[in-house]
Amino acid sequence: MNAPLAAKAFQARSISLASRYGGRTVLAIGAHPDDVELAIGGMLARLSRESARVVIAVVSIPTDFATRHAEAQRAAEILGCELRLLVDDGCKRIDDIKNYQLVGMLDALVRELQPAAVLTHSAHEFHRDHVTVHQACISTQRLKPFDFFHFNPTMCRPVPVEFHPRAYVDVTDTIEIKMAAIEAHLSQFGSRGLEAEMYRDLARLTGRMVGVKYAEGIDVGRMLLA
Amino acid sequence: MNAPLAAKAFQARSISLASRYGGRTVLAIGAHPDDVELAIGGMLARLSRESARVVIAVVSIPTDFATRHAEAQRAAEILGCELRLLVDDGCKRIDDIKNYQLVGMLDALVRELQPAAVLTHSAHEFHRDHVTVHQACISTQRLKPFDFFHFNPTMCRPVPVEFHPRAYVDVTDTIEIKMAAIEAHLSQFGSRGLEAEMYRDLARLTGRMVGVKYAEGIDVGRMLLA
Amino acid sequence: MNAPLAAKAFQARSISLASRYGGRTVLAIGAHPDDVELAIGGMLARLSRESARVVIAVVSIPTDFATRHAEAQRAAEILGCELRLLVDDGCKRIDDIKNYQLVGMLDALVRELQPAAVLTHSAHEFHRDHVTVHQACISTQRLKPFDFFHFNPTMCRPVPVEFHPRAYVDVTDTIEIKMAAIEAHLSQFGSRGLEAEMYRDLARLTGRMVGVKYAEGIDVGRMLLA
Amino acid sequence: MNAPLAAKAFQARSISLASRYGGRTVLAIGAHPDDVELAIGGMLARLSRESARVVIAVVSIPTDFATRHAEAQRAAEILGCELRLLVDDGCKRIDDIKNYQLVGMLDALVRELQPAAVLTHSAHEFHRDHVTVHQACISTQRLKPFDFFHFNPTMCRPVPVEFHPRAYVDVTDTIEIKMAAIEAHLSQFGSRGLEAEMYRDLARLTGRMVGVKYAEGIDVGRMLLA
Amino acid sequence: MNAPLAAKAFQARSISLASRYGGRTVLAIGAHPDDVELAIGGMLARLSRESARVVIAVVSIPTDFATRHAEAQRAAEILGCELRLLVDDGCKRIDDIKNYQLVGMLDALVRELQPAAVLTHSAHEFHRDHVTVHQACISTQRLKPFDFFHFNPTMCRPVPVEFHPRAYVDVTDTIEIKMAAIEAHLSQFGSRGLEAEMYRDLARLTGRMVGVKYAEGIDVGRMLLA
Amino acid sequence: MNAPLAAKAFQARSISLASRYGGRTVLAIGAHPDDVELAIGGMLARLSRESARVVIAVVSIPTDFATRHAEAQRAAEILGCELRLLVDDGCKRIDDIKNYQLVGMLDALVRELQPAAVLTHSAHEFHRDHVTVHQACISTQRLKPFDFFHFNPTMCRPVPVEFHPRAYVDVTDTIEIKMAAIEAHLSQFGSRGLEAEMYRDLARLTGRMVGVKYAEGIDVGRMLLA
Repeated sequence: MNAPLAAKAFQARSISLASRYGGRTVLAIGAHPDDVELAIGGMLARLSRESARVVIAVVSIPTDFATRHAEAQRAAEILGCELRLLVDDGCKRIDDIKNYQLVGMLDALVRELQPAAVLTHSAHEFHRDHVTVHQACISTQRLKPFDFFHFNPTMCRPVPVEFHPRAYVDVTDTIEIKMAAIEAHLSQFGSRGLEAEMYRDLARLTGRMVGVKYAEGIDVGRMLLA
Repeated sequence: MNAPLAAKAFQARSISLASRYGGRTVLAIGAHPDDVELAIGGMLARLSRESARVVIAVVSIPTDFATRHAEAQRAAEILGCELRLLVDDGCKRIDDIKNYQLVGMLDALVRELQPAAVLTHSAHEFHRDHVTVHQACISTQRLKPFDFFHFNPTMCRPVPVEFHPRAYVDVTDTIEIKMAAIEAHLSQFGSRGLEAEMYRDLARLTGRMVGVKYAEGIDVGRMLLA
Repeated sequence: MNAPLAAKAFQARSISLASRYGGRTVLAIGAHPDDVELAIGGMLARLSRESARVVIAVVSIPTDFATRHAEAQRAAEILGCELRLLVDDGCKRIDDIKNYQLVGMLDALVRELQPAAVLTHSAHEFHRDHVTVHQACISTQRLKPFDFFHFNPTMCRPVPVEFHPRAYVDVTDTIEIKMAAIEAHLSQFGSRGLEAEMYRDLARLTGRMVGVKYAEGIDVGRMLLA
Repeated sequence: MNAPLAAKAFQARSISLASRYGGRTVLAIGAHPDDVELAIGGMLARLSRESARVVIAVVSIPTDFATRHAEAQRAAEILGCELRLLVDDGCKRIDDIKNYQLVGMLDALVRELQPAAVLTHSAHEFHRDHVTVHQACISTQRLKPFDFFHFNPTMCRPVPVEFHPRAYVDVTDTIEIKMAAIEAHLSQFGSRGLEAEMYRDLARLTGRMVGVKYAEGIDVGRMLLA
Repeated sequence: MNAPLAAKAFQARSISLASRYGGRTVLAIGAHPDDVELAIGGMLARLSRESARVVIAVVSIPTDFATRHAEAQRAAEILGCELRLLVDDGCKRIDDIKNYQLVGMLDALVRELQPAAVLTHSAHEFHRDHVTVHQACISTQRLKPFDFFHFNPTMCRPVPVEFHPRAYVDVTDTIEIKMAAIEAHLSQFGSRGLEAEMYRDLARLTGRMVGVKYAEGIDVGRMLLA
Repeated sequence: MNAPLAAKAFQARSISLASRYGGRTVLAIGAHPDDVELAIGGMLARLSRESARVVIAVVSIPTDFATRHAEAQRAAEILGCELRLLVDDGCKRIDDIKNYQLVGMLDALVRELQPAAVLTHSAHEFHRDHVTVHQACISTQRLKPFDFFHFNPTMCRPVPVEFHPRAYVDVTDTIEIKMAAIEAHLSQFGSRGLEAEMYRDLARLTGRMVGVKYAEGIDVGRMLLA
């Protein structure tokens, strides 16, 4: 009795992601190529379909510039998103960027795009670069009262990291697009996409939590219900 | 430069509270009369104006039944909400209700109303009854994937309590309605409404955080962005 | 390259669960029938196979006594465990048991069984009875320096609850026994075992975290590395 | 009945800030000019009046050196405090100072001043430089068992940051001095002092929490009740 | 070099506990006899010597009424404190007291004594009764802005419990009085006082943290620096 | 009755540290010389005696290279461990090492040694370098599912730091070896070993928590019970 009810509630509500961000800009910021796709690829594909402008900003590419840039470009196309590479003149490690430089780049992006929502890494990550990007995004909040969300820890090789989502996005209709976007990162996930399957498992389990087939969970940093 | 920008962003977005809950039911649950008004009176008045059905559920009245019932009724009218008193046959302390009885009452309400959102006390409260109601509401989540929010600690005499909101509602247009609803609780806030003014101060300070004149902050337990 | 390495590491180590608890007693305490099976059925089946004495203690049966008692008995047999029902003379709600009575029952059990490890609910649960049992178990720690673990939140209908495991048990060889034990609770999970599948999904995802096919995660309250 | 009581309790006790720090040195450390004034300007003005030696240490000035140095000097005079600028030979970003250099500067200051109390940023800040200064101060604790307090997050443009004070200072008599000291930072708060008013609002709301007109809240890192 | 410095700082400051609470009332609330002595016996002995009125309130005696009452009386005398037994007409378990009854008793005490400080159990305790008393004390804060401190978990048989003090009291001069007060609880700690020695060890280790021979650590719930 | 029981339980179990890590490699990583000895010297001495290969990795020596290297070498010999100095060509501050370089060094070590367990600083430390090493070790978890433990904050001059152990190691038989290893750091702890005694006090208090004479407490990041 409960399951059909839940499903119906979700359908009724599925108008609202479109009504909230449709015709507006959503900015997803990841430390490196593939981070954003792994965490919220399904959500971005939905937003794009529902007429939001979605920009994926990748801070830098640490190694293998040409290949990874091309993969990121291909993945963004699959999701229907624009790609911005913040450090675009060759390989760069985030450790080699000063924090105020990183904040400066992100500030410029926020000033240009005027996003209705910004999504990035959370403070709970096993990779220091991800935490660094999270912290720099925290600062950009002073520019504009956009919705600010944090996504699930991302990794190529699994490590248990504490993360608890508070908001859930139904990605049943876009899970295959997400998986395709992940697999576009051939240099990371190979032809068989073995580790990538972890993200399908996670989406299925997350979906069960809210009564849909696949979902992505995000944490809420700041949200405007106006 | 920033302030006008923020204001504009908010206006553009002010469609979305209506589009999210308009024509649907929102259920606000407080331990005692006045709790809901103090915490989210401005939000409820907005929801009511924007065509949501808003139900205020008060668990019980500990003392002075007739007076406080009448005050609660009057406050609900001011906000444009329906009042439900869960223990409606006389004074009752929440300590004297078994937890499974409380969960049973709340379950029945959720089953009847099929709310799109439930708002209640958070786990961070100085009053045990408020925590008890929070915990009982936690259980009702299993019935339906409604949005689940927690509101600011409420009290007649101020005590510092840790609480950090994640979502913000612009209540600039309804702050006076909220203050009137609080003052309807004459037996608690007297004619001069001295302590009640604390809630106006809080709304002003919260508003500054997101670039509007008055706002209420709520925490997000679970939210469906579908 | 990493995956085979991980697998080998686990095999080498799989001696140690047996060497730690083999020939000794492990006590798993759940509020109601099915809790223990859902959370750590695979681990208990392994311990039983590896010559530990495993006792499942169920505090009480809230409704439908005969049926649920028989189901619990059947599930324990499937896992190779002994069942103890603490309130065994009919239906009882944990809310109707005083905390000191519950501590008294658990103390008696610990004194009798002298367990090398006790596993129970964590403090992070959406069901109050589970938290109550957790808190009562906290007290029993004063009797004996047993290993004290907390297991994953359990529920028939999914609700997102924050929980982060610190210890992982490979249950690849016993996942089917676990699923059979869950399904023995026919009155809860029906013939199709739909919600029960959530626990297989969770075990698969948890397994990925540590490089095995299926795993269960538990939190560590206190552990003796002697 | 409660309000007069509270007020009286406070008066009786208002001897004790003087008796605790009078004739001794209090050191307030901020990342940049204006931080200390925004957070604890009222407390410092009181300490200065009550015969403590109060030193405001500003780590560095990121831009516009001459102007901001002069503003900081003027603000310190208004509060009756001494100003120390740690990097005093031109603009410098804290990101460009090594952590051990920062700890070295703070250690030297603590060794010279032998403060009875040190106040600085908390770990909960949206600005990375503030967190960096907090962490460096943490290290100076090993030199001397001074009282160690953390103050409210400071910012020119409001961002919601989690912070919960545990100690409260009545600043009713010095709130105007504080506001004047903030406004001395003309380059930051302009002639109309709009955002600065946020700090008066915060002091009023904090004051309500402890029964006085205006108060500042600080968190306690370490305190000696001897 | 550091050690003598620290010691001197402490002496200079040791005026201030007296100046803060001397001639005023301090109320220490424990669930059962011996709790207060174990946690803050040294601090209470100092306050009493330094001319504060110190009242030890024990909520109830669960078993062995006459013996434990006499022991509590004797311990209070050793510390120079007054004893109040809240449930004084025979054995009573805190589980059998309604929360509003407990709050009522504590409110009455606070109204009568008008304490400058209240000390009680923290939220971090392995014994439920201790947590219950903590929660009831939280509510009494609304009556008066007294200093509110939480003390170290107390127990006869050791269990590791998370607790982090923020304030430290030098009890070098009163440690033997404290140990004598603990040993007055003969029915709990026997003639050899074996477990009681744990509290001397804890005081020595705590003392090292702040440069004195023996100290007690307490957490700060709310403090007025006025 | 309880004490002998506890002791017996521990003896029965003291087989298992050997059975878990005997014949395998344990890697202990400290920021500077003496950190590992202070925190887990007793545990490492036991592991070494029980036929584990124990490697102590010191990231760098900040000052006085030759002396401190020799002291570290001597301390490792006393504990029966191998010493690896990661930056071995002279003094280096961890602040001057890029995070990816540090992760690179630790990755290489983990790849070479294939440890069954890694022990390092926790996230709760007053010294930034210790936190930096903790964070870099977090990343190495992706290479192999080793047991991952965090040890007690270490310092030469005491500062209170929040830390709560979850696992306990009986070091009654090796406490004197530990103290000797600490004292081998003559340049830090002098001939009288005054501050070093703090660590004996801590071990005694920790031991009381689990019913043995001396114990070391560690926190569990990730553990495989297979």
